[in-house]
Amino acid sequence: MSDLTEGPSGRRRGRPPRTESAGTRDRILSAAREEFSERGYEKTSVRGIAKAAGVDSALVHHYFGTKEQVFAAAIEVAFAPALNASEVIEHGPLDGVGERLTRFVLGVWENPTTRTPLLAIVRSAVNNDTAAAVFRRLIASQLLRRITARLDLPDAELRVELAAAQLVGCAMLRYVIKVEPLASEDVERIIARVAPVVQGHLTGP
Amino acid sequence: MSDLTEGPSGRRRGRPPRTESAGTRDRILSAAREEFSERGYEKTSVRGIAKAAGVDSALVHHYFGTKEQVFAAAIEVAFAPALNASEVIEHGPLDGVGERLTRFVLGVWENPTTRTPLLAIVRSAVNNDTAAAVFRRLIASQLLRRITARLDLPDAELRVELAAAQLVGCAMLRYVIKVEPLASEDVERIIARVAPVVQGHLTGP
Repeated sequence: MSDLTEGPSGRRRGRPPRTESAGTRDRILSAAREEFSERGYEKTSVRGIAKAAGVDSALVHHYFGTKEQVFAAAIEVAFAPALNASEVIEHGPLDGVGERLTRFVLGVWENPTTRTPLLAIVRSAVNNDTAAAVFRRLIASQLLRRITARLDLPDAELRVELAAAQLVGCAMLRYVIKVEPLASEDVERIIARVAPVVQGHLTGP
Repeated sequence: MSDLTEGPSGRRRGRPPRTESAGTRDRILSAAREEFSERGYEKTSVRGIAKAAGVDSALVHHYFGTKEQVFAAAIEVAFAPALNASEVIEHGPLDGVGERLTRFVLGVWENPTTRTPLLAIVRSAVNNDTAAAVFRRLIASQLLRRITARLDLPDAELRVELAAAQLVGCAMLRYVIKVEPLASEDVERIIARVAPVVQGHLTGP
């Protein structure tokens, strides 16, 4: 419990001072990420996260709040590479956005380092409604808002989601379920087929 | 154990005689479906299925073999509505196949009776590699082969899988993760946007 003194108790959750407590917060977050990845949302407990981080459960609650809030903070970091998708859309000409986005998303999934935490998020979101709600809010606040601002078209959000659906489905079938021939197909051939579809969803008539 | 005498022990697994043992087999299958739906692949045991069906574990093994084989038999039934997709593709003109398939798949997901078992399969396949392998084989043997025969185009299997990816992604985002506005959008407006994409994957250049 002595760790609790590290953060002034009146401070807003999740915003520790930039002193030694930032190290503790990061350690908790890192433990949370590992626990959620390995066990999924349902089987992970705040107590387990605290134990893995070597701190008291009260400190986890102090920094992050509920299990749902720890999960939100943990997946925000794990999801960070995917959040760069909005930058991919923002930078460069709009008529190349389909290819840029397709290349980016498949790149994140091709790389095991970024694939593993993403897969853990997908598993938790598919299995648990609370985890799905956290994931949903993250997508809405971090991704949709920025991308739709760039598109500036009617139905921009729906367009983005249908484009995302094509990419999410590809990732599911290629990297998670691993159906053949899609799972072994050269990634450039997939990009060649999928990029025009994504472009069509985003900027087509 | 006395139930074991119902099926001649030399008979091939999963093919009981069409007498009273068919009832026992169905009862086991129905219990298996419920157990897998409720608990997912990993947490379901042959013992638990046997208990739910009111039979001895040995009888489950006798009719179906391993847990993996019980799962295959159980999801084949749960997946049956989705398997009709191949008929949807086989019947009717090829230039309307995108809309027929989109309408069919979203219809299966819109209906809670068919959505629930599908969701259970998806959850198991996303969580467990053995379950994913069973699902993968089912897709390959029951769905891909029949559809590609009808398409008769180069890369037919890849085309079908990329079309499926669009539909799987829509189902994931709309019915599982429930992102807005996709989750609340009128299904006809989704069909209007998705059907041409599916058609393009299947028969486009």
